[in-house]
Amino acid sequence: MTFWQTDATHDPALASWVESAKGHRDFPIQNLPLGVFSPAGETPRIGVAIGDMILDLSACAKAGLLPDAASSAAGSDSLNAFMALPEGDRKALRAILSQMLADNDQRSAVEPHLHRAGTCTLHLPARIGDYTDFYVGIHHANNVGRQFRPDNPLLPNYKYVPIGYHGRASSIRASGVPLVRPTGQRKPPEADAPVVGPSVRLDYELELGVWIGQGNELGTPIPISEAANHIAGFCLLNDWSARDFQAWEYQPLGPFLAKNFHSTISPWVVTPEAMAPFRMAQPPRPEGDPAPLGYLSDDEDRSHGALAVTLEVFLSSAKMREAGMEPFRLSRGPASNMYWTVQQIVTHHASNGCNLQAGDLLGTGTISAPTRDGFGSLLELTSGGKEPISLPSGETRTFLEDGDEVTLRATAHAEGYVSIGFGECRAAVLPAR
Amino acid sequence: MTFWQTDATHDPALASWVESAKGHRDFPIQNLPLGVFSPAGETPRIGVAIGDMILDLSACAKAGLLPDAASSAAGSDSLNAFMALPEGDRKALRAILSQMLADNDQRSAVEPHLHRAGTCTLHLPARIGDYTDFYVGIHHANNVGRQFRPDNPLLPNYKYVPIGYHGRASSIRASGVPLVRPTGQRKPPEADAPVVGPSVRLDYELELGVWIGQGNELGTPIPISEAANHIAGFCLLNDWSARDFQAWEYQPLGPFLAKNFHSTISPWVVTPEAMAPFRMAQPPRPEGDPAPLGYLSDDEDRSHGALAVTLEVFLSSAKMREAGMEPFRLSRGPASNMYWTVQQIVTHHASNGCNLQAGDLLGTGTISAPTRDGFGSLLELTSGGKEPISLPSGETRTFLEDGDEVTLRATAHAEGYVSIGFGECRAAVLPAR
Repeated sequence: MTFWQTDATHDPALASWVESAKGHRDFPIQNLPLGVFSPAGETPRIGVAIGDMILDLSACAKAGLLPDAASSAAGSDSLNAFMALPEGDRKALRAILSQMLADNDQRSAVEPHLHRAGTCTLHLPARIGDYTDFYVGIHHANNVGRQFRPDNPLLPNYKYVPIGYHGRASSIRASGVPLVRPTGQRKPPEADAPVVGPSVRLDYELELGVWIGQGNELGTPIPISEAANHIAGFCLLNDWSARDFQAWEYQPLGPFLAKNFHSTISPWVVTPEAMAPFRMAQPPRPEGDPAPLGYLSDDEDRSHGALAVTLEVFLSSAKMREAGMEPFRLSRGPASNMYWTVQQIVTHHASNGCNLQAGDLLGTGTISAPTRDGFGSLLELTSGGKEPISLPSGETRTFLEDGDEVTLRATAHAEGYVSIGFGECRAAVLPAR
Repeated sequence: MTFWQTDATHDPALASWVESAKGHRDFPIQNLPLGVFSPAGETPRIGVAIGDMILDLSACAKAGLLPDAASSAAGSDSLNAFMALPEGDRKALRAILSQMLADNDQRSAVEPHLHRAGTCTLHLPARIGDYTDFYVGIHHANNVGRQFRPDNPLLPNYKYVPIGYHGRASSIRASGVPLVRPTGQRKPPEADAPVVGPSVRLDYELELGVWIGQGNELGTPIPISEAANHIAGFCLLNDWSARDFQAWEYQPLGPFLAKNFHSTISPWVVTPEAMAPFRMAQPPRPEGDPAPLGYLSDDEDRSHGALAVTLEVFLSSAKMREAGMEPFRLSRGPASNMYWTVQQIVTHHASNGCNLQAGDLLGTGTISAPTRDGFGSLLELTSGGKEPISLPSGETRTFLEDGDEVTLRATAHAEGYVSIGFGECRAAVLPAR
């Protein structure tokens, strides 16, 4: 396994001439995430977030400021070609961007290509070929399993198989696009037959997203020692879920209409290079758990395969926003509550020869902490709707109401390095149509 | 519901000047399916199958032989733009093609654009955005359910919910591309832990594929009365399945690596217009079954929503091919063994607002007849591997061996009309890597 190494671009003393980048919670010069944006009234193009600004990479390429490989990828309106670049090319781009934004002598050449982020529209960063969602949050799996199967919360395959299933790519939207409350079948426990109507148990799910970079040929697995080289970046993912539909439809073939009506991602792709300082050892498996099978086992993955990232969820009701109240934090917990690393899910996915492609998106599944303050869904926080939570507005919630807005946030941190953030993954619930 | 009406293009007396089209099992002039092909050494382009020939539509467009809307869609190397055409444009194209290939006066202008199919390579007909597989073969669901859950073969949701799940788009290949036997986890019943190795229970599944035409906006369902207008065509689909992986991994989120290593489709898109004569009434639901819920219920769907298509599966072992033996027919049965119509699965899929797009592919799920001669998988034919079947070569099979080649075929037929076929859906099994 080759993980990205820290270098001069991670130097905590490095500062940008872009004022708002200094101390920025998400986008200091040590981050440099890639995305696709439109300046007001203009066409979508590739950019880099720096503080409260976005640097237009297509304009930089035209001005001859970028290395050749990055220049040719910068002409697109999606990051797919960027994601497919070999690691050397991506690393060269990061080094150049870091210099351009730190070096005062380059300011006059670069500054004309900056846009205020607040005046731009952010888009999906890539054409997503296939989207797969995993289930690596073991505390989530336990909490949910206990509600569906009290005697048998964790199925026998869980500690051997990184459980995953295919999701819907077409309905993934960037942060900010509201979702429509879905209509569908649910079967009340006491009823003889299902009823059709808007979901009454609409929930969010806190997940990390993993962008695939270089792909593999159909029929050719990705060894665990090479999995990191197939990852192009990370984002936040809210896998909105209609729990009432899910309970009725999910057997025997898994979730379908309970999930595929809308998924929200944060639009910035935090690169593996930016994450180099924030790799950590996998927490040891609990005593008695089996070791990962050979194809999922790797010393480097064990010692550096986990992510030092803190995840947070905020809720803001319509009433709270009208009253000018801040969003209310529902949970906070570490991403290391994943039973499988992102490398392990990449390798497992391709282990039967399934071909991954640049721009594919993998979700980790809901990441919950072992304790309530870090539960990653309302299903868990309210014990399946039985224990409402209180909002600072005096309202209570079991599941989401129309007008509620959910925001996910993530921060990567490590001793001696400047923290970087993932930006917002945010959307509000519109009434059913 | 508006179904295509028969017209002069379905006239059984209509004959083409392409000699091989007369009496052709699949591609008489009454069919005219669309596909993407490459003449030897040339680039992929759109074509129409006619007898043993393929008409190059991009060349016809350049020669000014096609209507405007079809001409602009014909310049692509995929059918996505064609599939998205409004029904009027597609109908106009069919009428022109039928005339061009029937009228002797047009022969000299059209004939230069014909290629021998045997010298061409056939490709996937569209860029598949999302692939969804359903489970509408109720006899298959019963047969398989009995093996997994003897006391409870059909789950309580089956007669209310057209059960479906998302599949993998990237690993779908056109007929003729061999598949590599997948490697993965399976848990022998007597073992304490799973083992990793090549699948020992590799199976095929006989399905119809449904191509989506015009899409719907995210958040906006497709009423059952309009579902037929969102269908751009039909094909055959072999949903290769590793039964040993499936049994171990499928709970709680459904099949994943058991299915996504390879799927094979027939490369010709049989249009809804071509299928106009082959619509039939839905067989009545068994006494005591619930009526479809309101959003899935439509008089026109009941009276014309099913497909008069006969499905067949053939197996040819390496030994049989060496001995010059014909492929052996494993099963034969009608597509009317679907509990839900293709219109119902389209409407159900979009009922929560999920957006379908031109070029999406829906599989029906395995279509089995009630009796063994029409079972659509080896899992059913061999009762889960317990009752081997005999091949004319003296070999026996429980599941597929390396070198086995499976071919699916479909024929649509109706009194007073010329039968049309779907072409081959064929692939051979290569050893695990």
